[in-house]
Amino acid sequence: MRATVNGKKVDIPAVWWKDGKLAVIDQTKLPRSVMIMRFSDHRQVAKAIKTMVVRGAPTIGATAAYGMALAAENGESLKAAAKLLRATRPTAYDLFHAIDWMLQSKGDPVESAKEYAESIIKECESIGKHGAKLIKNGSKVLTHCNAGALATVDFGTALAPMRVAKRQGKKFFVFVDETRPRLQGANLTSWELTQEGIDHAIIADNAAGHYLKSEVDLVIVGADRIATNGDAANKIGTYEKAVVAKENGVPFYVAAPMSTFDPRVSSERDIPIEERSESEVLMIGKQSIGPLGARALNPAFDVTPARFIAGFITERGIIRPSKVCQLTR
Amino acid sequence: MRATVNGKKVDIPAVWWKDGKLAVIDQTKLPRSVMIMRFSDHRQVAKAIKTMVVRGAPTIGATAAYGMALAAENGESLKAAAKLLRATRPTAYDLFHAIDWMLQSKGDPVESAKEYAESIIKECESIGKHGAKLIKNGSKVLTHCNAGALATVDFGTALAPMRVAKRQGKKFFVFVDETRPRLQGANLTSWELTQEGIDHAIIADNAAGHYLKSEVDLVIVGADRIATNGDAANKIGTYEKAVVAKENGVPFYVAAPMSTFDPRVSSERDIPIEERSESEVLMIGKQSIGPLGARALNPAFDVTPARFIAGFITERGIIRPSKVCQLTR
Repeated sequence: MRATVNGKKVDIPAVWWKDGKLAVIDQTKLPRSVMIMRFSDHRQVAKAIKTMVVRGAPTIGATAAYGMALAAENGESLKAAAKLLRATRPTAYDLFHAIDWMLQSKGDPVESAKEYAESIIKECESIGKHGAKLIKNGSKVLTHCNAGALATVDFGTALAPMRVAKRQGKKFFVFVDETRPRLQGANLTSWELTQEGIDHAIIADNAAGHYLKSEVDLVIVGADRIATNGDAANKIGTYEKAVVAKENGVPFYVAAPMSTFDPRVSSERDIPIEERSESEVLMIGKQSIGPLGARALNPAFDVTPARFIAGFITERGIIRPSKVCQLTR
Repeated sequence: MRATVNGKKVDIPAVWWKDGKLAVIDQTKLPRSVMIMRFSDHRQVAKAIKTMVVRGAPTIGATAAYGMALAAENGESLKAAAKLLRATRPTAYDLFHAIDWMLQSKGDPVESAKEYAESIIKECESIGKHGAKLIKNGSKVLTHCNAGALATVDFGTALAPMRVAKRQGKKFFVFVDETRPRLQGANLTSWELTQEGIDHAIIADNAAGHYLKSEVDLVIVGADRIATNGDAANKIGTYEKAVVAKENGVPFYVAAPMSTFDPRVSSERDIPIEERSESEVLMIGKQSIGPLGARALNPAFDVTPARFIAGFITERGIIRPSKVCQLTR
């Protein structure tokens, strides 16, 4: 992805290997400054995942793979390193998948980790190529949360079609939901689109419906887990946008690699919704909202039933929800 | 409304007349402290409206009426006072209505202003009585923004049925949308419900859909203007909640006095949507969000078409949208 580091324009992924170290963009410092952190010990890597210096399930997976490579390079116990890294974040499936992949890998650990990270980027590039066909000259696109390069090592899922369309010279506009409570839309997606020169505006999540009624041609979001019947879990608020999109005849697409389709989950009934800390709602940075003693509820995800989804943009092409079951068997 | 002022529990309206002065709750200091301001000059009153010390269309109207009374008491030109007060906020219809009402009033100015304010409270009490029938023991209610006592001198519109149901001893729970960008739900509605001892939780606006799918029995919101076909303008985000409520078979009610129905407006096409400052989206208190140079779009209202509205809770009872036209002729 494009970024400005120390005044210089560079093209960097969210995490990468350089000179025997793991380099990562510190996502907690975005969007106001792009700080690069470098790690030579897997313990530092574990801490970076835990404190959300890196976030986004595919990026977390790649970071953990590089953490395992560091442990191998330093001659440390891979079993102990795996245990430490697995304990950082409980819910991201990619974390466990990446660590298992590294433990089973027979080749050079650094090359294996690079291969893991590069396979994610390739999938995202394919998603971009297939999804770009949906974006026409003059299109107005709505997106929610950050399913961008920061979340997927590079290129993104929901943002990949926009990157490709921009490089194809298409002119289009993106409505970026700010995405309360954690504001990933305002702080990460808007930053990525700014770097790419893609015309966009941040809107309060509440304003999405108004624009879906009047201006939006197309919605593209990411997904955290997709059931075999096509129901898709994603950041809280996604479901609302999907329902209002359908009401207004606006096609709603979910961009995700095939690895997001979970063959063990048959419908939304099997997808647990993580309830996160009240403080994410009651504090915005250092600013507290609500009266003293106020309570909040903070579900991190919701599930959009398949009937609201026009298609899944994957590395294999655009898949209709009714076809998901056959592909994930 | 109930409030704790200097450690004492009191029952006060948003604005009231005391000892020859106008007293108001400074709404910019809520929810963390309840500060009372007192004005003896209509110029101070104009400033309080302009700086949003008082907000909410009916409260603004009553405040302006008391401002006119102060000008009369002080022997100043009523014409000049009217001009100054009219220039404070351009869009609130109640402001102009209240000033005209005072100019036409023949009686004692202070008594006239009191009469104006008390008529609003009486309407709200009737709305509460009619609307409370919709809230059952165990109901889960969703509300958006603040259509409470602070906005309507006292008692509220959307919150009036909850106040009455609480006094009737019913046990129910309220989901309070935080209501970005200005957070009136988190900062004002949650404060009012806390004071009344009504069980509730603040949620990110994005979470409303998730709870409408799983838990909410009933939605009650306010309105800024209602067309003769039943289309209703209200705080941005209302439309999304209404669409998702209908999708889930959850009845969606709009609570408003008859004065909110505008006989000159036949449908949503005639309702202009105010676009407010980008900074309301890009700044949360002193906290800025988004990358430097980011743009935002900030429509303050949206319009919910009549087909999503189960009924209007008014001082005359609950009115079906199809009956609005006859009543507003």
